[in-house]
Amino acid sequence: MELWYTEKHTDNVSLSIKVDKQIYSGKSEFQRIDIFDSKEFGRIMVLDGYLMLTEKDEFIYHEMITHVAMCVHPNPKKVLVIGGGDGGTVRELTKYDFIEKIDLVEIDEEVVDVSKKYLHTTALKLDDPRVTCYYEDGLKFIRRVNDEYDIIIVDSTDPFGPGEGLFTREFYGNCYKALHDDGIMVNQHESPFYEGDAEAMQRAHKRICMSFPISKVYQVHIPTYPSGHWLFGFASKKYHPVKGVNWDRWKKLGLKLKYYNTALHAGAFALPNYVEELLRDVES
Amino acid sequence: MELWYTEKHTDNVSLSIKVDKQIYSGKSEFQRIDIFDSKEFGRIMVLDGYLMLTEKDEFIYHEMITHVAMCVHPNPKKVLVIGGGDGGTVRELTKYDFIEKIDLVEIDEEVVDVSKKYLHTTALKLDDPRVTCYYEDGLKFIRRVNDEYDIIIVDSTDPFGPGEGLFTREFYGNCYKALHDDGIMVNQHESPFYEGDAEAMQRAHKRICMSFPISKVYQVHIPTYPSGHWLFGFASKKYHPVKGVNWDRWKKLGLKLKYYNTALHAGAFALPNYVEELLRDVES
Repeated sequence: MELWYTEKHTDNVSLSIKVDKQIYSGKSEFQRIDIFDSKEFGRIMVLDGYLMLTEKDEFIYHEMITHVAMCVHPNPKKVLVIGGGDGGTVRELTKYDFIEKIDLVEIDEEVVDVSKKYLHTTALKLDDPRVTCYYEDGLKFIRRVNDEYDIIIVDSTDPFGPGEGLFTREFYGNCYKALHDDGIMVNQHESPFYEGDAEAMQRAHKRICMSFPISKVYQVHIPTYPSGHWLFGFASKKYHPVKGVNWDRWKKLGLKLKYYNTALHAGAFALPNYVEELLRDVES
Repeated sequence: MELWYTEKHTDNVSLSIKVDKQIYSGKSEFQRIDIFDSKEFGRIMVLDGYLMLTEKDEFIYHEMITHVAMCVHPNPKKVLVIGGGDGGTVRELTKYDFIEKIDLVEIDEEVVDVSKKYLHTTALKLDDPRVTCYYEDGLKFIRRVNDEYDIIIVDSTDPFGPGEGLFTREFYGNCYKALHDDGIMVNQHESPFYEGDAEAMQRAHKRICMSFPISKVYQVHIPTYPSGHWLFGFASKKYHPVKGVNWDRWKKLGLKLKYYNTALHAGAFALPNYVEELLRDVES
């Protein structure tokens, strides 16, 4: 017998992964949650049919959504993660001893429960004493927060279903308000390659530009995401993501990572012409 | 009816592309050649079952295999392309007025014929007066060449089948010999992500390091290749690929490209830690 998980990246292209077996399948209040084991990618989490993470390449996503802002900000003590119920982003944040408080706002408590049960690789730090989990809609949570965080990481699903509100202008404006005067917001920013993804990416960029004076985009290779070409947004009140960064301060921490390094950080902000043009088209 | 082209990237993962119809299928002396039309990717060329190029993303591969060396070398007049029968690399080279001679060595004349007939996007400059096509094995061609070229671009298929010889130590050594004292070789360098590809990538890097004093690797996003994370090798007798490059000279040429720019060029040499480690493991 062969069992294959297939995700359509567009109507006309799909990625298929051979799986050994299905470990879990359930329906929460918000979405369907599936866990598979596979030879090539280890354990895999799928939400509403969309691949969220695999054990083999989640380090790329989680390192790159976390360490860029952590390197740029000179003194981050309080970090908010919106989404990210699998715990991968929290795991990366807990590598910094000087972070005092990590708040995780995940709309779907079952994602956290399932992750704690089946995804130890990412969930292992969710019980760190510095971590507080709030199970509610990030869009609502952020409305009542003012001048509270150094960094906000929007570790969302795609801009439809439960994650839709995390791509709105209102949400980004409230993230701005929730940050300190030198705060940084990083967000999962979709892909520039396929037309539908690129439009979502442009919409997000346009809305972030409306709220933040500094709004840049950086790119990474995520093999299991559509096209493998993925973007993160870096929005900031004060700090540029590359110019003036004190790289040595970060290097002195001596963190051992599999993907991120400071040269890659700087290089990731250099985008192909066609991506630059997509971004420029919505900046005004 | 639905018609899907599927390529196995490993035994456990595959990419499938919906095709409208098969435009051509033939068997040359060296390999099977297939051409498809697809809605998502336009026209597609497949050799021995492996996707070589699509109209939608070939610009990434061809721009990045060509313009990095063209930007670094201060005065390239004579360029050799080994493989590349589709003409995409030649097309990029012909954008430089100051190039005087482009030799293309393609083992399989039928790839050139089929490309001229069905792939106008890439093949349109193969009849440029500066271009000479040699239909023979690049491994043999290069043996009899000495101190002849400023740049050699190894635009090969994968390291098995007709392209196998283009990944040998003998071949790289002969490329060194065929280059002028300040010559540069760029090669298609496989992917670091899946185990089998990463081993091929390491073997190539090890062998290139044996022949060239400067041997670096740079990365690009090619959505239709396995994992989307692709590498090129930059091997050089004299010029570093980033340090000391006269970026302004290249910018003044005013070339309009879809992917390549000089910031991206510099950024592409900043590699993830795990790729750096794979490379270091075979350097000695």
